[in-house]
Amino acid sequence: MILTVTLNTALDITYRTAALTPHATNRVAEVSERPGGKGINVARVLAALGHESVVTGFVGGRTGDALRELLAAEGPGGQPAHAAVSDALVTDAPVTDALVTDALVPIAGTTRRTIAVVDETTGDTTQLNEPGPTVTPAEWAAFLTSYEELAARADAVALCGSLPPGIHVGAYAELVRLARAAGRPVLLDTSGEPLRRGIAARPDLVKPNADELAQLTGSREPLRATRDARRRGGRSVVASLGAAGLLAATPDGSWRAAPPTAVRGNPTGAGDSAVAGLLSGLVERLPWPERLARAVALSAATVLAPAAGEFDREAYANLLPRVAVTEQSSQPEQESHAPRQHR
Amino acid sequence: MILTVTLNTALDITYRTAALTPHATNRVAEVSERPGGKGINVARVLAALGHESVVTGFVGGRTGDALRELLAAEGPGGQPAHAAVSDALVTDAPVTDALVTDALVPIAGTTRRTIAVVDETTGDTTQLNEPGPTVTPAEWAAFLTSYEELAARADAVALCGSLPPGIHVGAYAELVRLARAAGRPVLLDTSGEPLRRGIAARPDLVKPNADELAQLTGSREPLRATRDARRRGGRSVVASLGAAGLLAATPDGSWRAAPPTAVRGNPTGAGDSAVAGLLSGLVERLPWPERLARAVALSAATVLAPAAGEFDREAYANLLPRVAVTEQSSQPEQESHAPRQHR
Repeated sequence: MILTVTLNTALDITYRTAALTPHATNRVAEVSERPGGKGINVARVLAALGHESVVTGFVGGRTGDALRELLAAEGPGGQPAHAAVSDALVTDAPVTDALVTDALVPIAGTTRRTIAVVDETTGDTTQLNEPGPTVTPAEWAAFLTSYEELAARADAVALCGSLPPGIHVGAYAELVRLARAAGRPVLLDTSGEPLRRGIAARPDLVKPNADELAQLTGSREPLRATRDARRRGGRSVVASLGAAGLLAATPDGSWRAAPPTAVRGNPTGAGDSAVAGLLSGLVERLPWPERLARAVALSAATVLAPAAGEFDREAYANLLPRVAVTEQSSQPEQESHAPRQHR
Repeated sequence: MILTVTLNTALDITYRTAALTPHATNRVAEVSERPGGKGINVARVLAALGHESVVTGFVGGRTGDALRELLAAEGPGGQPAHAAVSDALVTDAPVTDALVTDALVPIAGTTRRTIAVVDETTGDTTQLNEPGPTVTPAEWAAFLTSYEELAARADAVALCGSLPPGIHVGAYAELVRLARAAGRPVLLDTSGEPLRRGIAARPDLVKPNADELAQLTGSREPLRATRDARRRGGRSVVASLGAAGLLAATPDGSWRAAPPTAVRGNPTGAGDSAVAGLLSGLVERLPWPERLARAVALSAATVLAPAAGEFDREAYANLLPRVAVTEQSSQPEQESHAPRQHR
């Protein structure tokens, strides 16, 4: 079982409109809702890959009730009943889909909504994110008790997304230390100060995007920044570079992994799919190049899927053998001739 | 008691953002929710004026539960507990605020949400309106039974807003006829085909805005269009002309009523406040000029209020004696020299 933590879960609402006109009244043609938050997205993809997963974090209020109801209604594999999927095409994962189990911790506050307004003409998306409920110290303590029990029986732990109001900025560092104390591999996917504190607690894997990595290290040069992030405490660092794929710095070497062609579509959830690819590869003890190829193919297949945050299984199966994984020089000194702006 | 009907109720959500950036991710700084839909807004203002009101229409799902809970939580006068109001300044209304009673009919579908995204820098509002639930024939029949009972003991009935999916386009005509059969004065405030059908059933009062009136009559000349709307079946027609105030064509004469100065602010709910002014004046048997002055002052005081859909009581008291009401010529022939574009 893989445990994913989403402290700031969300009810993700998608509005389809002809075109969003600011400062006017817009009629919404179609409304859909799904359980959201990065760790929940990761768990959904893990389940589709055949890995049992458990989601925890906080949930509350009417939107929290709706989130839990929608989560329970999702079929095995985390795919809603209406999504037509072809299992035969998933060639590298266990053939049986697995379940997402709800271990969310109830709170007095109300789970936030996120609203994605999709222009039907252009496909462009305008995102509105509510801030999320304030979590009390007692609720955090209740979560920690539950988290320790769940982490102790997990094959891996993923800590995903932003912190809701009320949670101390070192929360992820605390969760990293607890997972490590239980001897469980732990992945961290967050940003800003929670990432800075969390990485210092020495997680097994961090997956920043280019902006998060630059904010953490002060460098926009991906290879240098990725290696800097390792020095800050990440045992392995996998940076997601958008359409360029992934860049990994690990104890076993450094690699770039890129999709065969740039894909166009909705990037929502692409990073979460990459996390699911990396985590599943970790528990399956795949070599790094295979983990990275899976993560890149899942990520690109998510961009290509019509529904935000889901991946196109056929595209995934087609892309997987065509991801180019190239080893990078193991000489970080190669870059040291450039002017040192950050010491 | 005044009965207001809102067939397409809504949970009105307001998001405050620094500035809405289309096709980007926007953080919402503040979220507020209130029971919405035109008839519910009208009832809230009626209650603030001291008139007992009953709201009916349809409500369902989690958003419907939230709407009912918020409606019950509103204090007497329909003002939420947090709103600081000064009762001493309400000079022309009964001094005691009254209650809004919930007689909404439950349905299987889910009440729609509306989202108003307010730019904190400019005050500009981008509105997103969900379409609303589909109402079944059995639910419509249950509503009609309840409506007949409520209308029979109402001093006046107001039919407000759009029709949800599943309701036949002649629904308002049916409700007008039932109110008239019960001997109750009935006001209609809707648009498009439901207005066209509804006005033919001879309501006592219709309150179109300039666009609705032009769509109904084919004329953008307000006095001509207002009189045309009377010929189509409205016993009295009061057109709301935005900042220019109101234009009334009635069996007792025609009047224009205008605020002393143009007011700037959020026009959301201004039309609903005008309806409440007209209805309260009707049941208090005020002469037309006084009804119109009240409606204009309430409408302007709604534009001036910081919260969308509420009115500023102090501004209302100040504006009321300064509304200019001028009688219009009773000679519609005066205009007949203009080219007749619509016969």
